[in-house]
Amino acid sequence: MDKTRKYPCYAVIFRSTQTDCQEGYTETAARMEELARQQAGFLEIQSFRSPAGEGVTISYWKDLPSIQAWKQNPEHQTAQQLGKKKWYENYTIEVARIESASHFSQNGPELDTPRSS
Amino acid sequence: MDKTRKYPCYAVIFRSTQTDCQEGYTETAARMEELARQQAGFLEIQSFRSPAGEGVTISYWKDLPSIQAWKQNPEHQTAQQLGKKKWYENYTIEVARIESASHFSQNGPELDTPRSS
Repeated sequence: MDKTRKYPCYAVIFRSTQTDCQEGYTETAARMEELARQQAGFLEIQSFRSPAGEGVTISYWKDLPSIQAWKQNPEHQTAQQLGKKKWYENYTIEVARIESASHFSQNGPELDTPRSS
Repeated sequence: MDKTRKYPCYAVIFRSTQTDCQEGYTETAARMEELARQQAGFLEIQSFRSPAGEGVTISYWKDLPSIQAWKQNPEHQTAQQLGKKKWYENYTIEVARIESASHFSQNGPELDTPRSS
């Protein structure tokens, strides 16, 4: 949660459920996160899981071309193919424009980022 | 993950870390989810947690006025005040316009929703 982030920026919301075959998944997921962090326009990435086992990874990017370039990265493309072949029962990838944000902290003032037009 | 959803729609990404005092949280969170589902323009809600304990709840809405109305709901407002007073160490709420989505399933064709202009 980066309070200095400039808006609008973009998020990729990647929601997935996994197959029974997770061989190689953990290593590849860690490598993809490492690789994403090196891309131009990368801002942040965080992964979460629901009680029912659905995963979501939210990555934040400066703009749409950065997201497109990351999607086309050759090592990432290989991982995407493996994901479809082995690891994911199903997934949804949503591309979202983050228009505004507000922050709260017990230790600081509440911050609002005005909505862009 | 609703494959029939129409885009663009909107998501509220609510990321939070909790305090040591979680008295009453579970009941209120469940009630808020129940209440959200009854609001006009509500599409979906799902909660996740990261390995480090950060929570994220993503709710999906038809449009911005639906989100604004939910934010102003009196019972929700009371819960928001309790959250700031007791349950949340900090949080970030991001409002995002979901512009496009793609789906993959082992059991079906890959679907792409064209990006709206």
